[in-house]
Amino acid sequence: MTKGRPPIRPGATGSAYVKIVEVGPRDGLQNEKQVVATAVKVDLINRLSDTGIPVVEATSFVSPKWVPQMADASQVLTQIHRAPRVSYPVLTPNVKGFHAALAAGAREVAIFGAASESFSLKNINCSIEESLARFQAVMDEAHTHNIPVRGYVSCVLGCPYEGRVTPDAVARVAQKLFDMGCYEISLGDTIGVGTPVSMREMLKATTQVVPVQRLAVHCHDTYGRALANIYEALQHGVRVVDSSVAGLGGCPYAKGATGNVATEDVVDMLDKLGYITNVDLPKLVKVGQFISAHLSRPNGSKLGQQAPSKL
Amino acid sequence: MTKGRPPIRPGATGSAYVKIVEVGPRDGLQNEKQVVATAVKVDLINRLSDTGIPVVEATSFVSPKWVPQMADASQVLTQIHRAPRVSYPVLTPNVKGFHAALAAGAREVAIFGAASESFSLKNINCSIEESLARFQAVMDEAHTHNIPVRGYVSCVLGCPYEGRVTPDAVARVAQKLFDMGCYEISLGDTIGVGTPVSMREMLKATTQVVPVQRLAVHCHDTYGRALANIYEALQHGVRVVDSSVAGLGGCPYAKGATGNVATEDVVDMLDKLGYITNVDLPKLVKVGQFISAHLSRPNGSKLGQQAPSKL
Repeated sequence: MTKGRPPIRPGATGSAYVKIVEVGPRDGLQNEKQVVATAVKVDLINRLSDTGIPVVEATSFVSPKWVPQMADASQVLTQIHRAPRVSYPVLTPNVKGFHAALAAGAREVAIFGAASESFSLKNINCSIEESLARFQAVMDEAHTHNIPVRGYVSCVLGCPYEGRVTPDAVARVAQKLFDMGCYEISLGDTIGVGTPVSMREMLKATTQVVPVQRLAVHCHDTYGRALANIYEALQHGVRVVDSSVAGLGGCPYAKGATGNVATEDVVDMLDKLGYITNVDLPKLVKVGQFISAHLSRPNGSKLGQQAPSKL
Repeated sequence: MTKGRPPIRPGATGSAYVKIVEVGPRDGLQNEKQVVATAVKVDLINRLSDTGIPVVEATSFVSPKWVPQMADASQVLTQIHRAPRVSYPVLTPNVKGFHAALAAGAREVAIFGAASESFSLKNINCSIEESLARFQAVMDEAHTHNIPVRGYVSCVLGCPYEGRVTPDAVARVAQKLFDMGCYEISLGDTIGVGTPVSMREMLKATTQVVPVQRLAVHCHDTYGRALANIYEALQHGVRVVDSSVAGLGGCPYAKGATGNVATEDVVDMLDKLGYITNVDLPKLVKVGQFISAHLSRPNGSKLGQQAPSKL
C-alpha cells in the first residue's frame, strides 16, 4: 500500500539486491503427491523464466525408483526454452545423475546433503561422511566439465528424527561443501521448525566458515515462520533466498503441512522492505495461480490467494 | 523440535511473559460470512477460556443493522461460563452499546478507533476527531462504573483507502486514547500490509507517547508477514499480542484473503522463542480444529492444519 520504495532497514548488511532461486519445479513438484505431465513442467519453467527470476531449479536426475515425480528429468531439461539471463540448475546426487544431466544439456548442477546423520541415512541412504565422498566424485566431474555446483544442506534448524541440530553441525557440513568447491551453499530449514533466534544462531556459526555472500536460505513455512526467518537472515547479510511459486511442495514429514515458502510472498516482502529482486510480481502471481489451478490444489501463496482485482 | 526451552533473544526488552488477547469470537466471527449460532459462540468462548488464555474478547455491542453477526451480544455475554482468571472484554462503540454491555454483565469494554481518516469515515461513519468525542462519552460512563477500557487503533501500518499511514498519525491517536484513560492500546495492522520495518518505525513513534507496557499489537496475516511483524514488536518490548484462534475472520477489504494471525501459530512461535504464555497449546489447537470444522472453513492456523498425530 505504501507509495514509493521504502529505504532499506538501516543497519542491514550487504547490497539491496536479493537473488531469488525458484525451486518450485524441482523441490516443489517432487513433494507434490501427483505426478505432473512433462509438458506442464516445461510450461511452468518457461513461465517462471519470464518473470525475471534469475535461477529456476528445473528438475532432479535421481533414480525414478526413488522419485517417480522426476523420471522425465532429461525431457524437461531438453524441452524448456532457455532464457538468456536465467540459469537452470538440476539436482545430481551422484556421478550417474551428473552424466545424465550433462547429456541433457545441464549447465549447472546441485548436490543435496544434510546436517543431521539420521536425516542423511533416511533420505539419501548414507552417512554424512559417505555423502560427502559421493559428492566429491560429482564435484570432480563437474570441475572437468566446468560446471558450477550448488550445495544444499538440509535440516539446518531441526531434524524430524533427531530434533535439535546444532549450529556447529550445520557449519561443519556447509564448510565441507564450500571447500569442495560449491559456489553457493543453500541452508534448508526442511521441516520449518526454525525461529528468527535459531536462524541467527545457525548463521552466526556458518558465516564464520563460509562467506555470507556464498550462503542462501531455504525456508519452509510449516509453522508460518518462514518470512520471519528470512527477514532475520537478511539482517545478517544473506542475499540469496530459495522459494517455491505458490508454495509448491508439501512436507513429507508432516502430513497436511505446507512446505516451501511461496516465492510471491517472499518477493512481496522484499519489495516492501526496499530490496531489489527484478521479479515482475503480478506476472509471478499469475504463474502461481496457473499451476495451482492445474494441480487443483490450494494456492500456498497468501498473495496468490487474493482476488485478481486486488493484485 | 528443540528439546528444552531456549533462552530469550539477548537484547530483548521486557519480561518473558507475553499476554495473549484472543479476539476470535469477536473480531474473527464478525468478519466471517456466516452468522454463527449463539450456542456455538458460547461453546467456543468456554473452550478458549479453558486453554489458559487470559483475555477472550467475547462480542460486540453494535447495531445489528451494521453487524448482524453480533446481534446476540447480550445472550453470548450472559450465557458464557466465566472462568475466574479470564477477562471477557466486549466492544462498545458508543454509550448505548456500553449500557447494553453493562446490563449484560460486562466487566471490561473496548473502543475502536482508526489512525486513518478515510477508514474512520467508512468504518465508523465519523472523523477521527468525532470518534474521540464519542469515545470520551463511553470513557466517562466506564469511569463512573469502574469499568476498564481497552482502546483499538486500526490501520496503523496502512489503510485500504489512503495507503500509507504515518507513524505520527498512529502515535497521535494512541496518545489520545491513552490520555483519555484506556489502560491498553492495541495497534492494528488491519489489512496486513506491514513489514518489520514499518512496525519498527510505527512503534518508535508510538512508544514516545505511550509506555510500551501499555501497547498491544494486532496483526493480520494477509501477506504472511504477521509473525515477522510480531517478532519485531517483541524486540521493541511489546508483550501483549492479539490473535484469533484458527485465524478466524477474513479481511473484508481483500476478498479471499486471510485475516487475523492464528493464536496457535503465535503461541507456538512464542514457546519456541522461550517466552511464557501459560497457554496449553495442544488444547488450543483442538479448539481451532473444532471451530474450523463447525464453520466448514479451512483452518487458518499452520499448526492447526497438521495431522493430529503430529501435534
